[in-house]
Amino acid sequence: MARPIAFEFAMTPPTFDDVRRARERIATWTHHTPVLTSATFDAMSGARLFFKCENLQKAGAFKSRGAVNAVFGLSDAEAAHGVATHSSGNHGMALARAAACRGIEATVVMPDTAPRAKIEAVRGYGGHIVFCEPRNAARQDTLDAVVADSGANVVPPYDDARVIAGQGSCAAELLEDVADLDIVIAPIGGGGLISGTVLSCRALSPATRVIAAEPANADDARRSLDAGRRLIEDAPDTIADGLKASLGELTWQFVSREVDDILLAEEDEIVAAMRLIWQRMKLVVEPSCAVPLATILRHAEVFAGRRVGVILTGGNVDLDRLPW
Amino acid sequence: MARPIAFEFAMTPPTFDDVRRARERIATWTHHTPVLTSATFDAMSGARLFFKCENLQKAGAFKSRGAVNAVFGLSDAEAAHGVATHSSGNHGMALARAAACRGIEATVVMPDTAPRAKIEAVRGYGGHIVFCEPRNAARQDTLDAVVADSGANVVPPYDDARVIAGQGSCAAELLEDVADLDIVIAPIGGGGLISGTVLSCRALSPATRVIAAEPANADDARRSLDAGRRLIEDAPDTIADGLKASLGELTWQFVSREVDDILLAEEDEIVAAMRLIWQRMKLVVEPSCAVPLATILRHAEVFAGRRVGVILTGGNVDLDRLPW
Repeated sequence: MARPIAFEFAMTPPTFDDVRRARERIATWTHHTPVLTSATFDAMSGARLFFKCENLQKAGAFKSRGAVNAVFGLSDAEAAHGVATHSSGNHGMALARAAACRGIEATVVMPDTAPRAKIEAVRGYGGHIVFCEPRNAARQDTLDAVVADSGANVVPPYDDARVIAGQGSCAAELLEDVADLDIVIAPIGGGGLISGTVLSCRALSPATRVIAAEPANADDARRSLDAGRRLIEDAPDTIADGLKASLGELTWQFVSREVDDILLAEEDEIVAAMRLIWQRMKLVVEPSCAVPLATILRHAEVFAGRRVGVILTGGNVDLDRLPW
Repeated sequence: MARPIAFEFAMTPPTFDDVRRARERIATWTHHTPVLTSATFDAMSGARLFFKCENLQKAGAFKSRGAVNAVFGLSDAEAAHGVATHSSGNHGMALARAAACRGIEATVVMPDTAPRAKIEAVRGYGGHIVFCEPRNAARQDTLDAVVADSGANVVPPYDDARVIAGQGSCAAELLEDVADLDIVIAPIGGGGLISGTVLSCRALSPATRVIAAEPANADDARRSLDAGRRLIEDAPDTIADGLKASLGELTWQFVSREVDDILLAEEDEIVAAMRLIWQRMKLVVEPSCAVPLATILRHAEVFAGRRVGVILTGGNVDLDRLPW
C-alpha cells in the first residue's frame, strides 16, 4: 500500500520506490503524455529523437506530477491545513490545480510584479494569492507568515523528495513507451526534473545516459559540476524563465553524482529551437522547454546516431509576447 | 491483398473496404495520431470532448492520409510518371511528401501569388512547382499541360475516391481509440474529410452522428444541403483558408445523404477558438482547424452531455502572421 511521504521526510533523497508510488498516486490526476517523433529534427540532428510531451500535461507542464504527488501524499489531517508555496511560474499553477483536485486550499506567494497572465492562471485553478515585494527575503517571510497562520504544508518547487519522485514518473513513462534509449535529455533549473529522471533511468534502463540541458546565460549547474560544489546564481538573464533557479541541496546530490553531463545552449539557439518546435511539431512550448533541442542541435556530435529521449517540459507562454 | 485503386476508378464512391485498405497502405508513412482531452473545454462546452490531433500528422495535416493512399495505391507503371495536383495549401505539401516517400516526382501547380511559406514547404518536401496566373482556368490549363507532358497521375485535393478513403482512416482510428462517441465533428470545405468520416462512422459505429462544421462566411455546404443541390461558392472571405473550396461531385453524394447536420461558426468565434486551443491545449492549429471547437461553443445545446470526437485537422500556419 502506498506510504504517504510526509513533509518531515521530504528532505531525505527519494528512491525509485518513491517514483513507483508516485506513479500510482498521480495516475488519476495527470496525463500519461504522448511521445512524438519528427523526421525533420531527426534529419537535422542525425539522431533518432523521441519527444515526451509534458507541454500537454495538466496545467501545461511536468510540474503537475510533483505537485499532485505532494498534495495527494498528505494525510487527511495534514491536507486539512492546505498547501502553500512561493512561485511565479508553473509550479504555482500546478500546485493550485493539484490542491483543487483534492479539494483543499492552496496559497501561492507571488511578487506583486508578477505578470497578470500568471496571476490569472493561479486564480483560474482556484489558488489563493498572497502578494509580496519582489525580493527573496520578502518572499520567504511572507510564506513563513502564511504557514504560521494556517499550518499549511509547504510544497517547494523542486528541492523536495515528494516533488522529485513525482517528476521522476515522466522518464519512467518515457522508458516504458520507448525501448533502448541511449540518452535522455531534460532541462535543468532547480534540478527537480533531472533528479527524478536520474532515478527512473538508473532503475529502469541503467545503460541510458542522462544529460541536462542548460542555458549558457544561467549555467550555474554546469559551473557547480565543474567546481565540485553547489553555486548559487543571482538573477541570471535568460529567456528560459523556468530555468533561472539554482540547484537545491537535495537536487545537487543527484546532479553531482548521477547526471552524466550538462550541455549549454545560447539564447538565440533557444529561441530558434522554440520556433522550430512550434513550426514543425505543431506544439506550443515555452522557451525553457526548447533548451534540450537547442542543445542537441548545438552539440550534434554527442547525439548523432543515438536514440534520444527529449523531455518537452511545458507550454505556458504569453501568446501576445512571442520572442520573434 | 490490397487492390490498388487506380485513377480510372477514382470517381466511383469509395466504400469502407477502401478505408480499410487505405489504413494498411498508409500505416508506414503516416502517424496514428494521439487523442487528447481538455478539462477546460469540457467545462466550457458541457460535453466530453476527444480531440483527434491531425495537426500532429505528417506534413502537419490529415491531408497526408489521402495523399499517401493515392500515391501508394498506384501501380509501379503509373507511379513512374509521377503525380500532379493544383493546390496552394496542405494538399500540395502532403502530396509532395507522399511522392518523396515513394521516390517519385510530384508537380504542384500554384498561383504565382502563393505565399512564400507555402512555396518553400512544397519545395522542402522535394515537390516541383509550376506557377500559373491566379485564375481557376489558368490553374486547370496548367495542370492539363503538366499531365499531357509527363503523363503524371492527377491526385485532386478531395473529390477522389482514393483521397476520401485515406481521410476516412482518421475517424476509424478515433473510433477505435475512444468508445461510445455520440457525435464526431469535423470541418467541411471540399468535403473529403467529412466523406471519409461518414464512411468510417457508418461502418464502425452506426449510432454516432456526423456533424460538419463550416465557417458562416463560406457556408456553401450548409446552403447546398438546404437547397438540395450542390452550390458553388465563388472566393468566400474567411480566415479559415483551408475551407474555401466548394463540394465536389463525389463528396456531395456523402454530404447530401449521410451527414447529419452542418453547423456554422462566425469569424471572430473561429479566431477565439484557435487561440483557446493554442493557450489551453498547447497545440499549434490553423484557423480551419478551430472551426469545430468554435461550432461546439456556439451551439452548446447540441453537444452538452454528449461524448464528442473532434477532428483537429491541421497546424500549418505562418507564425509571423497570427490573427490576434
